[in-house]
Amino acid sequence: MNDRLSVEKKVLSENDKLAAEIRSRMTQNRIVSFNLVSSPGSGKTSLLERTLEALNDKLKIALIAGDVQTENDANRLSRAGGKMVRPLVTGGACHLDARMVSRVLDELDLTDIDILFIENVGNLVCPSSYDLGEDMKIVLMSTTEGDDKPLKYPAMFRRSSVFVINKIDLLGLSNFDMERVRENALSINGNLRIFELSCRTGDGLDIWFEWLIQMVALKSGV
Amino acid sequence: MNDRLSVEKKVLSENDKLAAEIRSRMTQNRIVSFNLVSSPGSGKTSLLERTLEALNDKLKIALIAGDVQTENDANRLSRAGGKMVRPLVTGGACHLDARMVSRVLDELDLTDIDILFIENVGNLVCPSSYDLGEDMKIVLMSTTEGDDKPLKYPAMFRRSSVFVINKIDLLGLSNFDMERVRENALSINGNLRIFELSCRTGDGLDIWFEWLIQMVALKSGV
Repeated sequence: MNDRLSVEKKVLSENDKLAAEIRSRMTQNRIVSFNLVSSPGSGKTSLLERTLEALNDKLKIALIAGDVQTENDANRLSRAGGKMVRPLVTGGACHLDARMVSRVLDELDLTDIDILFIENVGNLVCPSSYDLGEDMKIVLMSTTEGDDKPLKYPAMFRRSSVFVINKIDLLGLSNFDMERVRENALSINGNLRIFELSCRTGDGLDIWFEWLIQMVALKSGV
Repeated sequence: MNDRLSVEKKVLSENDKLAAEIRSRMTQNRIVSFNLVSSPGSGKTSLLERTLEALNDKLKIALIAGDVQTENDANRLSRAGGKMVRPLVTGGACHLDARMVSRVLDELDLTDIDILFIENVGNLVCPSSYDLGEDMKIVLMSTTEGDDKPLKYPAMFRRSSVFVINKIDLLGLSNFDMERVRENALSINGNLRIFELSCRTGDGLDIWFEWLIQMVALKSGV
């Protein structure tokens, strides 16, 4: 298996180089960028839809919608008002890498963007290893999943800066315990900024929107 | 990237060889075996808990609980009455492979098992490529995920024989459409046997239990 390990190491080091290039392009253009990661079905696309509805008039938002197959998510984001939406179909690969993202960025006018969301493939394992040049990884989960997810996928929670807990309107319909999930997540990464919200009812979204606006202000130096 | 592809090909072909060996051991011992795959949080462990509670007295059930980290699932299954439960922690890998499963099987008395459940890592992408020597892959999803999941993860649905739709008690709390998910799944794989159930309320579980008993009878030649 040594062959395999050395190839993986090479792939990751090439990826890191490209990610550093992306990061420098983002900084030059004062774009704040987020890499959204979660299981399939936790609500990455729904959160971006709500975000577009609320902030599309205030901010210049670009979105890269990664998927193994189909452009369903990109289509949803365009319907929700996204003006700069790019599908990124991996054709089977279980994660996005910096090369794929870099190619898509070449098609966008970076001088005209405040905030970039990269919606990764729905997968809590593989995307954790690939830096995409983002400012922060945002990991999502929903209250219909088990509250031990942070312990079971520690790499993802360790490498994320923000933890969004979606579907709080469904609390009480399972044995999901909000206190326990917070404790589990913070035991892996004590620096996580945690948001609790529901994309369906809108609860908790205001705090999320405010935080995004602050992040944009910080990055643009205003 | 040619290096990488050829290494991947070699790994997969070694895996297929080991999977064939497992399959032949299972057949010799008349064990029916299932490889359970889904996103994290769809309810693989819950379904196995309910299955143990209902069938533990009737069938000799072995369970291999795969996880990236932690033995949480294995502990849950032991608490639910599992007599032959083995944790399989991948230590970072995003899927189980035949070598890992083969090692665990060496620890079990195969002459004393009717049915083997292998609970894969929560991931809808990578586990689809690795044959574990099972009779069938069973793909799960829950009604709190999007009903376009079969289209977005077609490899997994194509390679599965059974599709379990869990959390039907939460239908109506989102825009999940049962007809649409069935159509989407069957458009990818027209041979899927579909179960609709709720591990929380127990709805639909009887049909699942009956089917398992039939599968055991078929394999044991009774």
